[in-house]
Amino acid sequence: MKEFMDKDFLLETETAQALYHNYAAKLPIIDYHCHVPPKDIAEDKVYNNITELWLGGDHYKWRAMRCCGVDEEFITGSASDYDKFKAWCKVMPKLIGNPLYHWSHLELRRYFDCDLIISEDNCDAIWEICNEKLRDPSMSVRNIIKNSGVETICTTDDPIDTLEWHKMLRDDPSFPVRVLPAFRPDKAFAVDKPGFAGYIAKLSEVSGVNIVDIDSLKLALMQRLDLFCELGCKTADHGLDGYTLFAEASNHELTEIFKKAIASDGNGMSAEETAKIRTELLAFLAAQYKCRGFVMQLHFGVLRNQNARMFKKLGPDAGFDTIGNYDMITPVSRLLDKAEADGKLPRTILYSINPGDNAAVAALCGCFETSGDGKPLVMQGSAWWFNDNLEGMRRQMTDLANLSSFGNFLGMLTDSRSFISYTRHEYFRRILCDLIGKWVENGEYPCDVDTLAELVVDICYNNTKSYFGF
Amino acid sequence: MKEFMDKDFLLETETAQALYHNYAAKLPIIDYHCHVPPKDIAEDKVYNNITELWLGGDHYKWRAMRCCGVDEEFITGSASDYDKFKAWCKVMPKLIGNPLYHWSHLELRRYFDCDLIISEDNCDAIWEICNEKLRDPSMSVRNIIKNSGVETICTTDDPIDTLEWHKMLRDDPSFPVRVLPAFRPDKAFAVDKPGFAGYIAKLSEVSGVNIVDIDSLKLALMQRLDLFCELGCKTADHGLDGYTLFAEASNHELTEIFKKAIASDGNGMSAEETAKIRTELLAFLAAQYKCRGFVMQLHFGVLRNQNARMFKKLGPDAGFDTIGNYDMITPVSRLLDKAEADGKLPRTILYSINPGDNAAVAALCGCFETSGDGKPLVMQGSAWWFNDNLEGMRRQMTDLANLSSFGNFLGMLTDSRSFISYTRHEYFRRILCDLIGKWVENGEYPCDVDTLAELVVDICYNNTKSYFGF
Amino acid sequence: MKEFMDKDFLLETETAQALYHNYAAKLPIIDYHCHVPPKDIAEDKVYNNITELWLGGDHYKWRAMRCCGVDEEFITGSASDYDKFKAWCKVMPKLIGNPLYHWSHLELRRYFDCDLIISEDNCDAIWEICNEKLRDPSMSVRNIIKNSGVETICTTDDPIDTLEWHKMLRDDPSFPVRVLPAFRPDKAFAVDKPGFAGYIAKLSEVSGVNIVDIDSLKLALMQRLDLFCELGCKTADHGLDGYTLFAEASNHELTEIFKKAIASDGNGMSAEETAKIRTELLAFLAAQYKCRGFVMQLHFGVLRNQNARMFKKLGPDAGFDTIGNYDMITPVSRLLDKAEADGKLPRTILYSINPGDNAAVAALCGCFETSGDGKPLVMQGSAWWFNDNLEGMRRQMTDLANLSSFGNFLGMLTDSRSFISYTRHEYFRRILCDLIGKWVENGEYPCDVDTLAELVVDICYNNTKSYFGF
Repeated sequence: MKEFMDKDFLLETETAQALYHNYAAKLPIIDYHCHVPPKDIAEDKVYNNITELWLGGDHYKWRAMRCCGVDEEFITGSASDYDKFKAWCKVMPKLIGNPLYHWSHLELRRYFDCDLIISEDNCDAIWEICNEKLRDPSMSVRNIIKNSGVETICTTDDPIDTLEWHKMLRDDPSFPVRVLPAFRPDKAFAVDKPGFAGYIAKLSEVSGVNIVDIDSLKLALMQRLDLFCELGCKTADHGLDGYTLFAEASNHELTEIFKKAIASDGNGMSAEETAKIRTELLAFLAAQYKCRGFVMQLHFGVLRNQNARMFKKLGPDAGFDTIGNYDMITPVSRLLDKAEADGKLPRTILYSINPGDNAAVAALCGCFETSGDGKPLVMQGSAWWFNDNLEGMRRQMTDLANLSSFGNFLGMLTDSRSFISYTRHEYFRRILCDLIGKWVENGEYPCDVDTLAELVVDICYNNTKSYFGF
Repeated sequence: MKEFMDKDFLLETETAQALYHNYAAKLPIIDYHCHVPPKDIAEDKVYNNITELWLGGDHYKWRAMRCCGVDEEFITGSASDYDKFKAWCKVMPKLIGNPLYHWSHLELRRYFDCDLIISEDNCDAIWEICNEKLRDPSMSVRNIIKNSGVETICTTDDPIDTLEWHKMLRDDPSFPVRVLPAFRPDKAFAVDKPGFAGYIAKLSEVSGVNIVDIDSLKLALMQRLDLFCELGCKTADHGLDGYTLFAEASNHELTEIFKKAIASDGNGMSAEETAKIRTELLAFLAAQYKCRGFVMQLHFGVLRNQNARMFKKLGPDAGFDTIGNYDMITPVSRLLDKAEADGKLPRTILYSINPGDNAAVAALCGCFETSGDGKPLVMQGSAWWFNDNLEGMRRQMTDLANLSSFGNFLGMLTDSRSFISYTRHEYFRRILCDLIGKWVENGEYPCDVDTLAELVVDICYNNTKSYFGF
Repeated sequence: MKEFMDKDFLLETETAQALYHNYAAKLPIIDYHCHVPPKDIAEDKVYNNITELWLGGDHYKWRAMRCCGVDEEFITGSASDYDKFKAWCKVMPKLIGNPLYHWSHLELRRYFDCDLIISEDNCDAIWEICNEKLRDPSMSVRNIIKNSGVETICTTDDPIDTLEWHKMLRDDPSFPVRVLPAFRPDKAFAVDKPGFAGYIAKLSEVSGVNIVDIDSLKLALMQRLDLFCELGCKTADHGLDGYTLFAEASNHELTEIFKKAIASDGNGMSAEETAKIRTELLAFLAAQYKCRGFVMQLHFGVLRNQNARMFKKLGPDAGFDTIGNYDMITPVSRLLDKAEADGKLPRTILYSINPGDNAAVAALCGCFETSGDGKPLVMQGSAWWFNDNLEGMRRQMTDLANLSSFGNFLGMLTDSRSFISYTRHEYFRRILCDLIGKWVENGEYPCDVDTLAELVVDICYNNTKSYFGF
């Protein structure tokens, strides 16, 4: 029996252990998609206690607590930080097999030098150890990032964002980590959501472009893209949700739909109308990304805000999104083909929320001609969101390897709102080395250390660096 | 090499063996969803031979025989019981990897003390041993149930049922096992099926409510619910089949649709009309279940009666249902949200027939606020029907653990029409202990015996007991 | 650690090794579905170099190269054969976990006695060894086939084909391998594809039937079926792609739709119209297959030609098809039921391109009455196309075993355009024996050598022989 989370955690074979300890563990981290606030980095935020850091905005943990029947008072309510932490510790043993169990213990070990098992019994001891440690200067946001070996971070930013914190970080030579914005224009696509008119007004204001139709909307977005570029932005991403996703339309139609959306403030728009605007905008932006050398990331298949009552109470991103299983492959394939037909498809990464899409996504990536630069044009992203667990990552990597070129895989990203989730890169790297180790020791791939090391280093670091051009 | 089905069958690690033998194996059984006839329990039925018991109504075995090209004569036809049994024994070796192979041998070992391998060669010996044993008083239905360690059984009952056998059992102090009805009103939802008018007439009669519209239908169902409650009913379940499942409608519309359904006797109803009635009824009943403290079970995604010719010949439940793979997650999520929005969602268990839905179902369960009572409001049920096999159960448990709280899992149910299928609980418990054992011995969860034992006992017994309130 | 691809490659247990070496390895090959050109067999083609043989028409390898960012020039372009081979060798190490890695090394070992690892470093050596060997008479197409232990081959042929090469092969006693045509009338179904009118004209010409409506189209197809029968044809197959697949129509409607399709040459046909023609034709042909004792193969779920630009440049079958994940189970079930209702469903094999359909396909196979001849009427085919890899084959076999009768499985086919891919049968047989070996050594099936050997020999050879009647 292996000790719980010892140094060879998840590394079953000797090959896996050697690959991880000699190569993967030592590599810097490029976290090319996450949701941390750049403000917290710019201001070098410190945390008052472990609840603030661990439970403040982490809807993964909130969901898990709801699955354990914890009162909302102790999740997003007004209970004290200690009581919330205790509620969290109490449910932890029930989360056997859940990635939160591993993530939390990894974070405790790597950031707090604490190898206690999280449980109601150990709650007070952990509370003390963590809060004590959080008073140490090493636990400011910037120091956490530096000590985690992070080289580059891409945050997630709205076109209307002023990027003031990014400017501050760019102009601050004291912090060596690159913090870049990423362009996420979902709200400009949300013609079917209340608030659309206000958003467009705001976008008009910050861009200086008076948006009256789809063409001026495009102009405004280009203006913002230029700003993002100035700040070193290398990537854009899109959340593609909802049933109908691909529908072409004439300019005249698009103008009418856009007017209607502004007039109704996003109310009463049909799925078809919404799809037409989205299709047009995505094809336009794809071409823009291509010009600018951006990588386009497409995240799809989510059913968002499925609990109307809680949405009213807590707003979005509070743990009420879920996995859809409607067909996204057909419309995504149409969207990519539309862009590709004009030779305007940028490097693109595809992520589906549904693990049942893995094989279809991996296969779709093979349908594109490249420029012959040694990189795929379209690539499957790492196991996303609900799939970011031991089995989910193994499945995604196995499907990608079966159907595409595993040696070109772009590896891990945290997708996180927390500054201590860089251990997810460790988690990923262990699983990666274990997978390769098993293939090798089972006689399925030659045991050639140089080739294996190259594969590991490429997947953990080099591929991302050169794909995005960091 | 392990012996075939020895005492450590499916228990690979020492941790698994210890958890199973010291804890899981000893627990009583709560079989909260099955299809055994209460009449057979009330009358303490005895069986004339093994064919009657094993092949009489088991459409799992019928399907397997059809997959092996057995003549229908020997499946549901007029061949002799011996000849049918022989046909079954003959195909058995071909069912390698099929759960029937394990179930049948487990049943033979546990109920008949016979460890012969089922095959054409051993047919006569097994026929003799089983039929001999069936003449023993220990093999009456009541004794089988008692000796299987069963504590509670929930049968599946139609609202028009008089529940006479349940009354008899309630009033019979000589049988210590609780046998409770479960409310399954599928036929009241079947506005698009021939026979609807007759069913409603019958429901009017037994309820004493003259059903003329949707409101009186609701009244009649409430009246029946009261009767079910009197007899200790704790759960209702619904089979949600067919494409369109969520559609709201005005009262006026509902009245018109209902009238049409009665007038046409379920013929010519559109999918939309059917969905409107079903949505209204389900939301109404969900609220009723909530009031009464029922657990609502939703079974979805089946394509039923796919062979029209055989349906005409043999009727439903003869082995001609199959796994659908249309999107059920979207409508089920809408149905749950509609009930939740009014605060009227009862504790609910979700089962999809399609294993590709596992992750989506497990994730959906996390989208609900609870009352803070330490239990999830919505839970994924155990691997259902076609998934009730070694790999299917492992997948469902792994997905649930990854995406929800495994410690709150409600464990096994037989879903069976047979009185000797309680060994499926043994099968499940072995797989459960094996899964946990692997996690522990692989260093993925601490090896703390008390915590592990608590998890196993909770999943096999306690969680169900307290979730349903037995 | 096992050596890379040693004699016990993929055979983990002793049981697996014994089953493979003593039984599976020695069996002849029946390759009942492939895409090799009968002309090349008739003419006993020889190859100038390894590029021609390996990369000439293999869109699996083309896709893999695109996934590695290889310039199209070196894939389907005008680069020299040596440069194309070098480009292939160079990307090979990145294809860890991809079946092409195993297939290519197996082919190198079995056909060229070369156990070098494919890489840029070894490119020249392998180029020399292979090209040298290709000059040996043993490497003509006929000798490759004979030396591979092939007993029967079914090619894939259009109804308008004259079958001249098949006639030549039938009349040539010097070649002992049976080479039979298979009937693939997809183009006669393609009422929605440009070119339909021309195809129908050609079919009129070769059949001698003046096709003016759906009835004369049926007559023409029957005439062609008769020719295929004369040449020993035992099977037909259909590619069922696109959303709407099942729709019934009156004779009058069908006539109008057919006229429209001819007049528009396949342009502007609706999905519904297309489905109506296809449903009618498939039901008709199914009945014809039944009369003639054919096995009907249905391949479904593909999204074809997803890259419009490359389709214009290279045409179909150039590596731009992908995995769809729309619902095919519902329409396929309706199609089968329609045929079955008239008692006219032939033996049928179902293949879905989407591995997420495995369970639904396996379950669907259980919904049919048989003639009592010991064979299933409908069977799940082996893991198809994108799924034809280590994990994909394991999943398909596990799902089939769980849900149907594994002992009746029809085993492997190459589906290949290449004459050296018979090693895929070796690959399959190793995986099969490994799977059975694990079940046995884990105590899940009795270790009875005779029964196990029978299962292996049936699945690898006997079942196919008797199902098709070869």
